[in-house]
Amino acid sequence: MRILVVNANTSEEMTRDIGEAARRYARPDTEIEVTCPAWGPRSIEGHYEDYVAALATVETIKERASEFDGAVLGCYGDPGLYAAREVSPVPVVGTAEASLLMACPVAHKFSVVTVLPRVKPLIEDTIRLHGLESRCASVRTTPLSVLDCERDPTAAEREIIKAGQAAIEEDGAEAICLGCAGMGPLDKAVQGALGVPVFDGIACAVKLIESLVDYGVGTSRVAAFKEPEPKEFVNYPPADVRVPA
Amino acid sequence: MRILVVNANTSEEMTRDIGEAARRYARPDTEIEVTCPAWGPRSIEGHYEDYVAALATVETIKERASEFDGAVLGCYGDPGLYAAREVSPVPVVGTAEASLLMACPVAHKFSVVTVLPRVKPLIEDTIRLHGLESRCASVRTTPLSVLDCERDPTAAEREIIKAGQAAIEEDGAEAICLGCAGMGPLDKAVQGALGVPVFDGIACAVKLIESLVDYGVGTSRVAAFKEPEPKEFVNYPPADVRVPA
Amino acid sequence: MRILVVNANTSEEMTRDIGEAARRYARPDTEIEVTCPAWGPRSIEGHYEDYVAALATVETIKERASEFDGAVLGCYGDPGLYAAREVSPVPVVGTAEASLLMACPVAHKFSVVTVLPRVKPLIEDTIRLHGLESRCASVRTTPLSVLDCERDPTAAEREIIKAGQAAIEEDGAEAICLGCAGMGPLDKAVQGALGVPVFDGIACAVKLIESLVDYGVGTSRVAAFKEPEPKEFVNYPPADVRVPA
Amino acid sequence: MRILVVNANTSEEMTRDIGEAARRYARPDTEIEVTCPAWGPRSIEGHYEDYVAALATVETIKERASEFDGAVLGCYGDPGLYAAREVSPVPVVGTAEASLLMACPVAHKFSVVTVLPRVKPLIEDTIRLHGLESRCASVRTTPLSVLDCERDPTAAEREIIKAGQAAIEEDGAEAICLGCAGMGPLDKAVQGALGVPVFDGIACAVKLIESLVDYGVGTSRVAAFKEPEPKEFVNYPPADVRVPA
Amino acid sequence: MRILVVNANTSEEMTRDIGEAARRYARPDTEIEVTCPAWGPRSIEGHYEDYVAALATVETIKERASEFDGAVLGCYGDPGLYAAREVSPVPVVGTAEASLLMACPVAHKFSVVTVLPRVKPLIEDTIRLHGLESRCASVRTTPLSVLDCERDPTAAEREIIKAGQAAIEEDGAEAICLGCAGMGPLDKAVQGALGVPVFDGIACAVKLIESLVDYGVGTSRVAAFKEPEPKEFVNYPPADVRVPA
Amino acid sequence: MRILVVNANTSEEMTRDIGEAARRYARPDTEIEVTCPAWGPRSIEGHYEDYVAALATVETIKERASEFDGAVLGCYGDPGLYAAREVSPVPVVGTAEASLLMACPVAHKFSVVTVLPRVKPLIEDTIRLHGLESRCASVRTTPLSVLDCERDPTAAEREIIKAGQAAIEEDGAEAICLGCAGMGPLDKAVQGALGVPVFDGIACAVKLIESLVDYGVGTSRVAAFKEPEPKEFVNYPPADVRVPA
Repeated sequence: MRILVVNANTSEEMTRDIGEAARRYARPDTEIEVTCPAWGPRSIEGHYEDYVAALATVETIKERASEFDGAVLGCYGDPGLYAAREVSPVPVVGTAEASLLMACPVAHKFSVVTVLPRVKPLIEDTIRLHGLESRCASVRTTPLSVLDCERDPTAAEREIIKAGQAAIEEDGAEAICLGCAGMGPLDKAVQGALGVPVFDGIACAVKLIESLVDYGVGTSRVAAFKEPEPKEFVNYPPADVRVPA
Repeated sequence: MRILVVNANTSEEMTRDIGEAARRYARPDTEIEVTCPAWGPRSIEGHYEDYVAALATVETIKERASEFDGAVLGCYGDPGLYAAREVSPVPVVGTAEASLLMACPVAHKFSVVTVLPRVKPLIEDTIRLHGLESRCASVRTTPLSVLDCERDPTAAEREIIKAGQAAIEEDGAEAICLGCAGMGPLDKAVQGALGVPVFDGIACAVKLIESLVDYGVGTSRVAAFKEPEPKEFVNYPPADVRVPA
Repeated sequence: MRILVVNANTSEEMTRDIGEAARRYARPDTEIEVTCPAWGPRSIEGHYEDYVAALATVETIKERASEFDGAVLGCYGDPGLYAAREVSPVPVVGTAEASLLMACPVAHKFSVVTVLPRVKPLIEDTIRLHGLESRCASVRTTPLSVLDCERDPTAAEREIIKAGQAAIEEDGAEAICLGCAGMGPLDKAVQGALGVPVFDGIACAVKLIESLVDYGVGTSRVAAFKEPEPKEFVNYPPADVRVPA
Repeated sequence: MRILVVNANTSEEMTRDIGEAARRYARPDTEIEVTCPAWGPRSIEGHYEDYVAALATVETIKERASEFDGAVLGCYGDPGLYAAREVSPVPVVGTAEASLLMACPVAHKFSVVTVLPRVKPLIEDTIRLHGLESRCASVRTTPLSVLDCERDPTAAEREIIKAGQAAIEEDGAEAICLGCAGMGPLDKAVQGALGVPVFDGIACAVKLIESLVDYGVGTSRVAAFKEPEPKEFVNYPPADVRVPA
Repeated sequence: MRILVVNANTSEEMTRDIGEAARRYARPDTEIEVTCPAWGPRSIEGHYEDYVAALATVETIKERASEFDGAVLGCYGDPGLYAAREVSPVPVVGTAEASLLMACPVAHKFSVVTVLPRVKPLIEDTIRLHGLESRCASVRTTPLSVLDCERDPTAAEREIIKAGQAAIEEDGAEAICLGCAGMGPLDKAVQGALGVPVFDGIACAVKLIESLVDYGVGTSRVAAFKEPEPKEFVNYPPADVRVPA
Repeated sequence: MRILVVNANTSEEMTRDIGEAARRYARPDTEIEVTCPAWGPRSIEGHYEDYVAALATVETIKERASEFDGAVLGCYGDPGLYAAREVSPVPVVGTAEASLLMACPVAHKFSVVTVLPRVKPLIEDTIRLHGLESRCASVRTTPLSVLDCERDPTAAEREIIKAGQAAIEEDGAEAICLGCAGMGPLDKAVQGALGVPVFDGIACAVKLIESLVDYGVGTSRVAAFKEPEPKEFVNYPPADVRVPA
């Protein structure tokens, strides 16, 4: 099975790390290819970057997904997820979505621990759109920027554990979803420290795609995720912005 | 007062029509400038076009909004609305949002009448994100594509009235929100036929911006709509795609 | 355009202040007339006063509204709002309702800062009936009675700012709705201190009525707000209680 | 035990019928006194009458409740219920409230069958304020006015059974709450015809008050239903409108 | 009238105490018989015991209920309540259910004060299934095990009062439901200390059954609580486990 | 990896069929053992059977789960799921739960098609407890009993397709979850006929357990699913009812 993981930002380090994280728990016969868009922000910490990255990621998936059995949209806001489903012939799973769904069978309530406070509304909306708000104990933020997770993983781990402990003790969380793809590689360290299940959405998304493919189901085409209507586009896509071959 | 109305698609006819619709109910001292992005789809009937148009519209607002007192995001899915708020120094109001908010004081429940069935989930999500799902009696679709509204307004009017009547009689709707910016010019004809208030979101958005500006309030900057973090972008924006001066 | 603002209580000072607040942000061509019922409580801080004031206000609107283009129901519990809509030929907008609707396009979540703790359930119910509970971060109370806002505006401002700060820092509020008509004149002072948009419902209601009238929509008459059925009343209205001409 | 039942409208026939209905299922040692306000509408079919009747009923309860062990607010919209609780030293139970609460232990979902379509939003709001919307399968209306239930009980029974059957077969209702105090006397006839539990809110309210009094609990005074603040009223209550001794 | 109260656990002391508590507020002509299953856990503090006790209790009700006019399922998680309704010819009311329903007419919001923290999710689910989550201010836990309530009632009372005070002051509770059948006998002592209504679900369930029986309504048989289908069971019930005659 | 699938009823044919269904989509290195309790009902179509089967299944999982890497609770009401989690050292996934979670990434809304109308409330409660009611378009029933699915699969398939088509056309379903473990083997036939993804919860649960085990997460032990407290049981488990070795 071949799975495409698209890091939504253009940080090469994070792309590489996400790829490693994705491979850790993939089955031996699952081949992971990780990529990132040819354009867009180095990191995503707000709605503007989210929309630039969304389109860049959707175009990457549009161009590449047919070579794979499934695709992972690698950013915790799940930017462009529904658009990616429309343009992809194979299932597309989002990072937030995957972590939330996988937490459900092992925890009555989970919390999301994420980066800067400004992303909290964005993540709350994401959870609400996935319909899982009644399972979510809280969204906890940290002083970490997305790139801080790479620059100083030790400090990042410390902040995540601190926020996770607060979520468990004050909010009733029984599991922690790591609310930034860049936090994924810290999953097992945080799980060891907190003593509750910890979920990296990238790893979860790989597992969900393996499951969907094994089971032989694809994206439903009768309503929300119907293929796009035939349509004229003006000046788009731009000639000088191409996703990598 | 100067308000920028950005039609999110690139249909020149619809841009012109939306501009006229926006001017109809603007105050005499309100100057409306209507534009559309320099790139993107001719019409929006699904998530993929929604995301392309979202970014094109957000960039247009980013470039132009500072010349105005407020901006209207002209497409019923409110594509990129939160991103537009981040990058705009002046208030940005969405088409769906405006129609829903304006319907509230005159109707206990409203319905949205929109284009093809495939957009129903997209519009339901939009209503849910705005938090108004308990005020919404139903989202009713028609066999109309977005461009049908322009090509044959008489037929469009007939379909909208038919769906509106069903919403009133079967779903308990007391007002109708026209769920496509291209339907806006038909608002009064439909209102006359149905005997309930009918809302064109573009007209409503203009009125809300006039109100916000008069009252001296702008977008809150402390959380969801904080200005974007300083950030490096790769290959973006593309050199050959520029929004018009 | 002529708008009737009905302060729901019988405090003359507050009636005058509300009138001034209403005029501040009205358009130059909008004429505001402010009045209060000829009977009822000096202030409203509970359900009993709310119901007395509701009826007194509804009767005032019933008698006077036809001379105007719209009416504002001036009390934050929106007492009798739906009844006022039934008996008024022109749109009626509530104070709470207006502040909540106007906060929506500039804040992802808002809080209401109001008077004594006992009104919290009443205001929570009001927000729930308007369907906006998912947009409301919290209802924060103060030790202020309604009349305290008039007697000592400096102290009132201090308490409101304190509660508003808590709402922003602890509850995630991005805007503040002033949860008592008497707090309205403090809107800009509080906004200056808190750095987030602050909403006086009276001012907002005036703007919404201007917008509805400009747009040519009135109260829907097909269900919730149908004109009252022809009906016999016993001993009502009482001979010695008349609303002023 | 002595219970005051206050019919909220001023129809003497309905007052008498409600009294009889209330006595049917009261315990032998429960004494029922039924009354109606000295002023107000003959029947309640909209928000305006609801507010007139609410105040008239609240004043009746204010004046009389101290002579009793509990009071029933006899109208299906529960008009003024929270105000009545504030001014009454003894528990006050609403008609809608009682029917909904009593239906819960015998039915997974119930429907309300009521009078004219225009009251549907009012009753839906009432159910929502009581927090029981997830237990409510539907609110079904009939072509009956309130006074039709008295004028032609046979026709009324037929219409109620027809609506009840539709609720059971199409909406999944397992019990029927009669959504108008005037329908109460038909409860057992409708129950016999439909084969599901049928609830008259007046009878239910009497039983709930008996239960609360037996158990020794009264209205909570710490927040929503605190006694009214000491307060000056202008021209109120009017000299020529007195509730009966 | 004869009511069967089934303590869901097998503690004889608690069974006796629950019987006494049930009799305290029953009407003089109500005969209470209290029993407990012949098998099952001494106390219930988690889902496993809940399911063992649920079946044991349902079997007890199945065997005995026809001798009575109604049955009380005596455990705050309402274990097996819907099954008990299916197999009982007379109404069955749950402990949690009864306390929540009875609190509604005297408090805008209530809190549940219960035993060990681990039961909080179980009780939150119970409240949610009964549809009353919007009326519930909080579920507060204590360090008490179920049997602690019997072993040291003085200490238990102290802990309950402490949690109840926090619920009133921090969560907005206006009434307290005692979230464990074993806490029931402390109801009036806690009510005296807290100054808000306090509810023992056992006492409440007895009152609700008295009310349902007086009113002549039984469990609805058309959907959720239809009698079980005729069905073959393997090795069940086991020969050596019989409920007492 | 070794997974235990416990059919909750005692039908040997259905146990065998479920085992085959479970193996179809399991990975080659996943070993499936299917069993059913030594006691309990032949089929489950109501709450009573659900509770008997729940306990029998929980005991089976309690006795056997430690020999496996995960366990599937094989019945669409997920009977005893939370209890099974408490007593199992390895993850336990429910049939309904798994089908709902797996449908999420491929459908905006799904419907459940199940057996007799009487199970509809039970399944709606299950979906609500899993928190996914906003993703569920409808629960559609058929005239099929559980054992009909085995006795006449051709007729069963026809009924399921009919109900599924109605769900797609009238309710907006984009995927179908088969609401009875016995329907599982028909998944691909129904999927072929309907043209939307169709989910057998048993197959889905196997995939979810494979994923959880690969990822190295187990049931959270800090709150809802803590191991049971040490506890005395009376006459339980009964001597003559043992789960098979």
